[in-house]
Amino acid sequence: MITRLLIAYDGTDFSGWQVQPNGISIQQKLEEALHILLREQVRVVGAGRTDAGVHAVGQVAHFRHAQALDYRRLHASLNALLPVTIRVRTIAEAPDGFHAQFSATSKIYHYHLGLGHVINPFRRLYRVQFYQTLDLSKLAAATQYFVGTRDFTSFANSSHEGCAARDAVRTLNRLDLIEEEDGFRLEFEADGFLYKMVRNIVGTLLEIGTGKRALEDIPSLFEAHDRRAVGMAAPAHGLFLIQVHYANF
Amino acid sequence: MITRLLIAYDGTDFSGWQVQPNGISIQQKLEEALHILLREQVRVVGAGRTDAGVHAVGQVAHFRHAQALDYRRLHASLNALLPVTIRVRTIAEAPDGFHAQFSATSKIYHYHLGLGHVINPFRRLYRVQFYQTLDLSKLAAATQYFVGTRDFTSFANSSHEGCAARDAVRTLNRLDLIEEEDGFRLEFEADGFLYKMVRNIVGTLLEIGTGKRALEDIPSLFEAHDRRAVGMAAPAHGLFLIQVHYANF
Repeated sequence: MITRLLIAYDGTDFSGWQVQPNGISIQQKLEEALHILLREQVRVVGAGRTDAGVHAVGQVAHFRHAQALDYRRLHASLNALLPVTIRVRTIAEAPDGFHAQFSATSKIYHYHLGLGHVINPFRRLYRVQFYQTLDLSKLAAATQYFVGTRDFTSFANSSHEGCAARDAVRTLNRLDLIEEEDGFRLEFEADGFLYKMVRNIVGTLLEIGTGKRALEDIPSLFEAHDRRAVGMAAPAHGLFLIQVHYANF
Repeated sequence: MITRLLIAYDGTDFSGWQVQPNGISIQQKLEEALHILLREQVRVVGAGRTDAGVHAVGQVAHFRHAQALDYRRLHASLNALLPVTIRVRTIAEAPDGFHAQFSATSKIYHYHLGLGHVINPFRRLYRVQFYQTLDLSKLAAATQYFVGTRDFTSFANSSHEGCAARDAVRTLNRLDLIEEEDGFRLEFEADGFLYKMVRNIVGTLLEIGTGKRALEDIPSLFEAHDRRAVGMAAPAHGLFLIQVHYANF
């Protein structure tokens, strides 16, 4: 049997989604709690392997198990065992063949930026404060250079396993700039994301917004097919996994 | 000379606004930073003495000092010295006679409540999760029993100094229930608030919303003139000091 979870977490105190030798991961916390409750060792597979410090409001995960489950009871017990920074929003049986990562047809990430001299203390862990002056209209114009089906090699770091994804072609359906109080967010929707892709694109957009890099340079960054052509990744704590879509589930 | 500050703080890790023998207060942090920067010991007076764990987005404070100040520079230095959980939003010279507490003509507090089985992990420190079922229309009806000029003795705890305020008559201009995603907030505006008054009123409203107390009992709570007539205060971390008004400044 397969069970599907919808999960929210504050990534501040975790080493990321994936189980790692150092630090505590969200996957580990879920697997430990499920092991206690099911008396069965399960492997929890997430749709997106969010990095250390990255947050989620709509992570999706699945696990396979032998027994039939009382989901109402399991839901309450799981949230009672998990730290309050990880919450299972919903839990339900998934149809045969469902796989949180491979069945996903698109994902939405948001990146939050605060502007101005004074950071909002209530969003300090959830929004990256940018103290320099930004030309937001230039930044908005730059977003459109990233939309479409492209080879994002220059915007992908090597993954945890030390090897780059073999195929770096992804389709970015939209990249929208939405103004907020004292800041803005960038909304990304794509069929898939490479390792650190959102944060590398945000880093480049900020360079363009400050005038450090010209709008016209973006095509050459893609053509370089080299991560070293692109500047620093934006910090982790502004990034949220918002939603995962499954066209067939 | 008098300087006026507009301050936001995440109250989670503080023992409240006011300097206390145990724990670190917001007032203490401000006074320490100003002592370093002005090389002068100043006393910072706040408009509202928020309790341990209570937050503020619009606390107002003032201090008196001998020297003329470079506010632009002082603003940046203060925020650099203060913990990121306390932010000075604005700083400016105040007219003669300004007093953050005594010149205030009204204040606005908001109290945030989350509803449902699953707490939002991003608001866990800023909203009180209420897991029981609430009759929101009954709760909204109850709010109007508190609006007006009344003796709030039954809804006031003794203050820090161990004595109740001599005059407990306050005018609550409005108490509005505003629905939010997975919860709601209560907006209070009054000419002044007694110690724990908002949290005691919220405690009573929740008792009415769950059916533990009847709407018609509220007048008798006022008539008792006794804090013991009223139930538990709602927790601190849902409460925010939003704004302080000064009609004459």
